[in-house]
Amino acid sequence: MEGIMEKIVSLSKRRGFIYQGSEIYGGLSGTWDYGPLGVTLKENIKNAWRKRFVFGRSDMYEIDSALLMSSEVWKASGHAQGFADPLVECSECKVRFRADQLPAGVASGNKCPNCKKGTLSSPRQFNMMFKTRIGADETAGETYLRPETAQGMFTNFKNIIDTFHPDLPFGLAQIGKAFRNEISPRDFLFRAREFEQMEIEYFIREGEWKEHFENWRKEMLSWCEGIGLPKKSLHEKEVAQENLAHYSKRTIDFEFDYPFGKNELYGLAYRTDFDLANHSNGSGADLRFYDEETKERFIPHVIEPTFGIDRTVLALLSSAYCEDELSGEKRVFLAFTYDMAPVKAAVFPLLKNKPELVKKAKDLFATLKKDIPQIMFDDNGNIGKRYRRQDEIGTPYCITIDFQTLEDDTVTLRNRDSGKQERVAVSALSGSIKK
Amino acid sequence: MEGIMEKIVSLSKRRGFIYQGSEIYGGLSGTWDYGPLGVTLKENIKNAWRKRFVFGRSDMYEIDSALLMSSEVWKASGHAQGFADPLVECSECKVRFRADQLPAGVASGNKCPNCKKGTLSSPRQFNMMFKTRIGADETAGETYLRPETAQGMFTNFKNIIDTFHPDLPFGLAQIGKAFRNEISPRDFLFRAREFEQMEIEYFIREGEWKEHFENWRKEMLSWCEGIGLPKKSLHEKEVAQENLAHYSKRTIDFEFDYPFGKNELYGLAYRTDFDLANHSNGSGADLRFYDEETKERFIPHVIEPTFGIDRTVLALLSSAYCEDELSGEKRVFLAFTYDMAPVKAAVFPLLKNKPELVKKAKDLFATLKKDIPQIMFDDNGNIGKRYRRQDEIGTPYCITIDFQTLEDDTVTLRNRDSGKQERVAVSALSGSIKK
Repeated sequence: MEGIMEKIVSLSKRRGFIYQGSEIYGGLSGTWDYGPLGVTLKENIKNAWRKRFVFGRSDMYEIDSALLMSSEVWKASGHAQGFADPLVECSECKVRFRADQLPAGVASGNKCPNCKKGTLSSPRQFNMMFKTRIGADETAGETYLRPETAQGMFTNFKNIIDTFHPDLPFGLAQIGKAFRNEISPRDFLFRAREFEQMEIEYFIREGEWKEHFENWRKEMLSWCEGIGLPKKSLHEKEVAQENLAHYSKRTIDFEFDYPFGKNELYGLAYRTDFDLANHSNGSGADLRFYDEETKERFIPHVIEPTFGIDRTVLALLSSAYCEDELSGEKRVFLAFTYDMAPVKAAVFPLLKNKPELVKKAKDLFATLKKDIPQIMFDDNGNIGKRYRRQDEIGTPYCITIDFQTLEDDTVTLRNRDSGKQERVAVSALSGSIKK
Repeated sequence: MEGIMEKIVSLSKRRGFIYQGSEIYGGLSGTWDYGPLGVTLKENIKNAWRKRFVFGRSDMYEIDSALLMSSEVWKASGHAQGFADPLVECSECKVRFRADQLPAGVASGNKCPNCKKGTLSSPRQFNMMFKTRIGADETAGETYLRPETAQGMFTNFKNIIDTFHPDLPFGLAQIGKAFRNEISPRDFLFRAREFEQMEIEYFIREGEWKEHFENWRKEMLSWCEGIGLPKKSLHEKEVAQENLAHYSKRTIDFEFDYPFGKNELYGLAYRTDFDLANHSNGSGADLRFYDEETKERFIPHVIEPTFGIDRTVLALLSSAYCEDELSGEKRVFLAFTYDMAPVKAAVFPLLKNKPELVKKAKDLFATLKKDIPQIMFDDNGNIGKRYRRQDEIGTPYCITIDFQTLEDDTVTLRNRDSGKQERVAVSALSGSIKK
């Protein structure tokens, strides 16, 4: 039997959410291309995030820093030395595995799980950053594609202070791509080599870290609820003291019940003053905050809420995926919230070959589109097929123009989740959909 | 005297539009970080583009493909072999220059313009793509950061056909980053190593190319007008037959009068069936379109309108930059259109130390923000200073809450360009601003 995960991957491709990257060339492992519905879903996520965490607050500054940064940044941040996975190699087939992800039996037996013949070497560190060279010389500067968006915010801390003179606490926010040369990309969007993050560095006074950490914990849970992730699928995992990064005093992983199991969705970390202090040492720039009241200068501490966009997409697809029976027929639908749904409503003429219905439907479509841009017109196949197609992409409403419409200017409005239809006046349509 | 270009770069940094990338480490040449106002300006551009070219049409499909693509893509597209600049090297100082950008005197004399001692070598081809390696092995696959967004659309052509069954003509649209290892990045955002594009591949029947080319030419000019670029600063340059890329039958460069001179802003190219045919050969995938009516299969031709985002930002900053005198004082302001302005309105309490004014101003700010998210609160310095600050970032309206406000619920609404103020009822404010 096909698992839920396979069904989601297949639906994503069939309906234009997500395609394998470089697919016609056999695919480039760990890269994914977003199709039209995927782009809109992703934009809905970004816009909701920006509305809540940037425009919805008066203490947040959004930036967009370059993906290519000076190699000095990665030395100061510790990534050039420490951002590595332990890899083991098979003596026969030469395939490599992450030592920390080998099944318990393999790890103790040292037998290659691929060729079943060779033995595995002892672990060796492998830096996960993608290296590249900038400039024309053979001696051109080596640098890396950023493995996280965070450092671009730390390196712009002084710029924001100098431009906007914010008081503490304040935050920098950033949405953008990051890259990790994963040895074994897996689980669809979950572990990819190229991915997108929405990240905040929230600068605070050291003494207030517990209170701010708790605020952000609640904010993140509230965000999850707002976009429609069910509470029962979310789990907070307090990272044990002995597993914390050396600079962190507290970290929570927000885990989600993906179809393939419980795993990380978001993270919340108290990073102390580690990054700003390192960049201050590395660059020589004064990254202290000047407190007008106490006349003191000090390096602020930071709380970091991180939201992976692709993991959000995967969590939304997973939790929205439903199978049920409607009028005796099996169907699949995506129960997105209205805000997340890539298409808010679809407009159908009942029959494709009746010009008066088609014209009326197209006129209505054009009128509605001014108010609700994420709307679709469909006259392909019978109404039942169109409903199923819209159900599969999670469209909350279908609007059908029939012969009665021509008489009394009402349409049928069909609800995705219940499958129920009601007659609504055209004049009341936009309001009905948006509520 | 400081030139306009220097003033724009300085204003961009001072006011939080754009900072040098990796600035605290001395800067990484050819990379730029967008500050809060720059991010919003860029988002305004993207949203306007998407509204017009994606949601405003029924024949456009937006995708977002990975920046990392299989190296096979770049072989098929010709970039792996041909995307190169001719470089010359100095025998003494070893500095390299683009042979095609050397001043006439230097090119004929072969004397190094840097150290003035050495002689320049004969030109050698240098591929402009950033190379990287994917995977853990020393023999890991080499590939490149994409030098244009276009190829991600060609490689997804079949996915879009299979998912959405569009009829010709139809387009793919994409917004995203691209990278070119420029030997000499220059002129602020104009020639950067990392930049962002908005691009369309519009698939057509070969026989209709002239008509579609002309339509897109007009569309691009209309777009320029819509975002506020003055007609007199725009110039169409028909690329001469002998300078066309071998696959192109016609190309127009849209040039703009930047402060440093006339140079390329956008491009419009008729790329024939060159790319799809190459990818069909390279991948073995059938990239033909099936015409239901004529029952024929053929590879569509393509018209490609390309819009550089960073160049749009630079063109907008350049054309919006104004200096004038207001009430006998010199001032600088950015005459952005309302849609492009990063901040639509700023709300001030007349005096910072009058709690009743501050409270009223904060309440009004919170109310307006629900309707107009891109709004700012400012109580720093005297009103004159606040006006100048808002002028410099191009805020069309400033709203001041004074003692009269407490009596009759009216405020002063100040117009950026004229500097004129009028009294407006609070209830009419949102409407006045948006019109």
